[in-house]
Amino acid sequence: MKIRNPRTGQYDYEITIPSPEAVKENCDRLRSHQQPWWACGIDKRVDALQQWKQAVEQHKEELITALCTDTGRKWETLLETELVSTAVDRWCGIAKDFFMPVQKKSSSIPFLSLQQELVPFPLVGVISPWNFPLLLSLIDTIPALLAGCAVIVKPSEVTPRFIRVMEKTIAAVPELSNVLKYAEGDGIVGAALVNNCDLVCFTGSTATGKKVYDAASKRMIPVFLELGGKDPAIVLEGADIHLAASSILWGSTANAGQSCLSIERVYVQDTLFDAFTTALVKQAAMLQLNAHDINQGQIGPLIFEKQAQIINDHLQDALNKGATILYGDSQCSVINGGYYCRPTVLINVNHQMKLMQEETFGPIIPVMKFTTKEEAIRLANDTIYGLSGAVFAGSVDEAMEVARQVEGGAISINDCALTAVMHEGEKNSFKLSGIGGTRMGPSAIKRFMRQKVFIIKDEGKPSPWWYQ
Amino acid sequence: MKIRNPRTGQYDYEITIPSPEAVKENCDRLRSHQQPWWACGIDKRVDALQQWKQAVEQHKEELITALCTDTGRKWETLLETELVSTAVDRWCGIAKDFFMPVQKKSSSIPFLSLQQELVPFPLVGVISPWNFPLLLSLIDTIPALLAGCAVIVKPSEVTPRFIRVMEKTIAAVPELSNVLKYAEGDGIVGAALVNNCDLVCFTGSTATGKKVYDAASKRMIPVFLELGGKDPAIVLEGADIHLAASSILWGSTANAGQSCLSIERVYVQDTLFDAFTTALVKQAAMLQLNAHDINQGQIGPLIFEKQAQIINDHLQDALNKGATILYGDSQCSVINGGYYCRPTVLINVNHQMKLMQEETFGPIIPVMKFTTKEEAIRLANDTIYGLSGAVFAGSVDEAMEVARQVEGGAISINDCALTAVMHEGEKNSFKLSGIGGTRMGPSAIKRFMRQKVFIIKDEGKPSPWWYQ
Repeated sequence: MKIRNPRTGQYDYEITIPSPEAVKENCDRLRSHQQPWWACGIDKRVDALQQWKQAVEQHKEELITALCTDTGRKWETLLETELVSTAVDRWCGIAKDFFMPVQKKSSSIPFLSLQQELVPFPLVGVISPWNFPLLLSLIDTIPALLAGCAVIVKPSEVTPRFIRVMEKTIAAVPELSNVLKYAEGDGIVGAALVNNCDLVCFTGSTATGKKVYDAASKRMIPVFLELGGKDPAIVLEGADIHLAASSILWGSTANAGQSCLSIERVYVQDTLFDAFTTALVKQAAMLQLNAHDINQGQIGPLIFEKQAQIINDHLQDALNKGATILYGDSQCSVINGGYYCRPTVLINVNHQMKLMQEETFGPIIPVMKFTTKEEAIRLANDTIYGLSGAVFAGSVDEAMEVARQVEGGAISINDCALTAVMHEGEKNSFKLSGIGGTRMGPSAIKRFMRQKVFIIKDEGKPSPWWYQ
Repeated sequence: MKIRNPRTGQYDYEITIPSPEAVKENCDRLRSHQQPWWACGIDKRVDALQQWKQAVEQHKEELITALCTDTGRKWETLLETELVSTAVDRWCGIAKDFFMPVQKKSSSIPFLSLQQELVPFPLVGVISPWNFPLLLSLIDTIPALLAGCAVIVKPSEVTPRFIRVMEKTIAAVPELSNVLKYAEGDGIVGAALVNNCDLVCFTGSTATGKKVYDAASKRMIPVFLELGGKDPAIVLEGADIHLAASSILWGSTANAGQSCLSIERVYVQDTLFDAFTTALVKQAAMLQLNAHDINQGQIGPLIFEKQAQIINDHLQDALNKGATILYGDSQCSVINGGYYCRPTVLINVNHQMKLMQEETFGPIIPVMKFTTKEEAIRLANDTIYGLSGAVFAGSVDEAMEVARQVEGGAISINDCALTAVMHEGEKNSFKLSGIGGTRMGPSAIKRFMRQKVFIIKDEGKPSPWWYQ
């Protein structure tokens, strides 16, 4: 299968799609090593992950090169690569606390004690997307490995160049290579994963997530789905306009908007609407495309060709329905074969437009006016999604009052997309943005395990509940 | 729809199946009252449930009469009815501790604080089975109500007589009647529930559970499934034979074996096999059918006609393949129109027989000999199910060593089926026995809620991660 380069449009890389049988063989091999991985204990698993962190460090340049080619952007690639060490260290710390020895304890019933233990799911399948290829391939993988599971990861076929580098880093740690595999492949390989794993984590579109959920239901295995979003930002009277504009610009255009937790809709109180849009446009105009030099400019290419078409469609639909572009592009440009879009600020938008309803996944910032808080909340919640959001106000208390009524798992207060920055909270997705447990915090490890209770009748005691 | 009486075989009761539109109307009504129910706080919800407990107490005789007709047995009905008060009190205590006020806390990132909150799913659908009609209709309902959800319950159409009594008890507490409804109906009503709720709890067969999971996946809503079991008991050398035999007899034949956590397979070490089966038969012979007087005897009728056919099929299959009946019946008897089966002990059984592979759900006790612990564990795990199990040994330590290797969510040590007696542990189902969180312990409340995190940038601080 030929792979497109997002900066040149050239199909300059090739992957070999393994057969479903080959996927099954890999899954069987990984599963056969899971018991010793679990039995060796948390200290040994932490050691293996720390060794692997070193191996990633040693292959860092190669990894960055592959990821830059996969995604066409530099800054976010450096960030993704840096975050591997941080994530390994954070999860190792959480896991060490998590796996404290458990004690037998007494119950409220005479003669009965209980002891709780946790048992990992043997093999976890991770299907990860193209927008943050490295980060999102690891976000479930690291806690699952620490939980004692074996893991097979299938990154998106849109950005597969980093996979062979990852396999090198894994090969450097033999204990880990027994229980962790990165697999190249497309949707057929993804389906084979679902058919051979005991639990599936999927990050990607709601449309594909539904397919994964359906396939998992037929095998009666659990899924964790992190899907699309259409995150709103609400700017209330009293908010710091400069702060709100800079933050929303960052939240909407980082990674060229190709992020599930990107701000895709902005609702601004009427009294500061003009001042806000003026500030936003002024700051948006300072951002540059990286089309001519990957080391210059903040906005990279649109990684996935089809996504450029969606962005064009949403812009055209909005313009047809009366939207006005205050700054930016009415459609993506092709530069040297890559698709690019400038930060684009639109007003005169409404909820009949795709731009306000469907996930755009580009650096597009539609700004809509509201009069009352109730109207802002109603508009923010008028969506099939419920991933996250942001509220700006003159005080934290005022922002919190509104934020509590916004349907979503994480609401940033006086800033945007803070789940990308701070990983200590626990959150679930609302509505069609996902299913299943939090992927942040200690509960994220517990997701990969089943609770088992031993109920112990004390020695030599009779059982009063038997037939007399 | 006409309903069969399990003691007479007569179709002496009728339910009206509501249309899917009527189910939707009920769901919409319940959902419309959920926000105030959640907003009123845990103390008010506890008050409402305590009032409802009184209402159940006032309708106790009527409830017992209906349930005795539904199920044909008395002792388990009294137990089910008694357990309502116990369950309400236990859950109210757990819920009061669970909903402690949360505080904003600092994070490891300068200028960022976080605050965790929980948000209930608006409407929970509960689909419950016929074997413990009252108990299993409430096991998820009570924690879901305390979590702040509205709940619609659809008990099995096999045992619907208690539903109208339940509706009377609910009507006695107006706040509760806004957010709780018992619905009569069959599988079509169950499907309508899945189509109109935000989360579904299902207890029943693995076959129907698969359908529920599939339907839920199409709507992208979460499910909790508690399905079939084929629980093993292992009796190791050194075990107290009298204790093991009495306990296994209870675990296999309580409620005529119509329990997901019934012991359906017994593995006994060769050295004490004969002594064990002798003790088991002796005790089994002391149990009586309640066919002639519901107040006399321990073994009630088989509630569901089709289940009697499955029991007959499993027995016939085993006998054809060489099994020997040491005590009991080679097929169910029909007495006064009801199906009955005596406690039936079989030996010379093997894993080619349906009796050792499929859920029998009757008072049937197949006993198989083993030589080594490894063999016992392998046999115990040779099943598609993983609900629970039991291990008997000379010491708790020895039993625990084996129990750790038995795949299941709850293992009783030196007794059977202790999850029916002690509700303080947390457990998940393994393999095809289920999906989703524990229905015991504080986590059982959390299942019905989504975690929401507010990430708060402290006032007046800049964000170092913006574009510079």
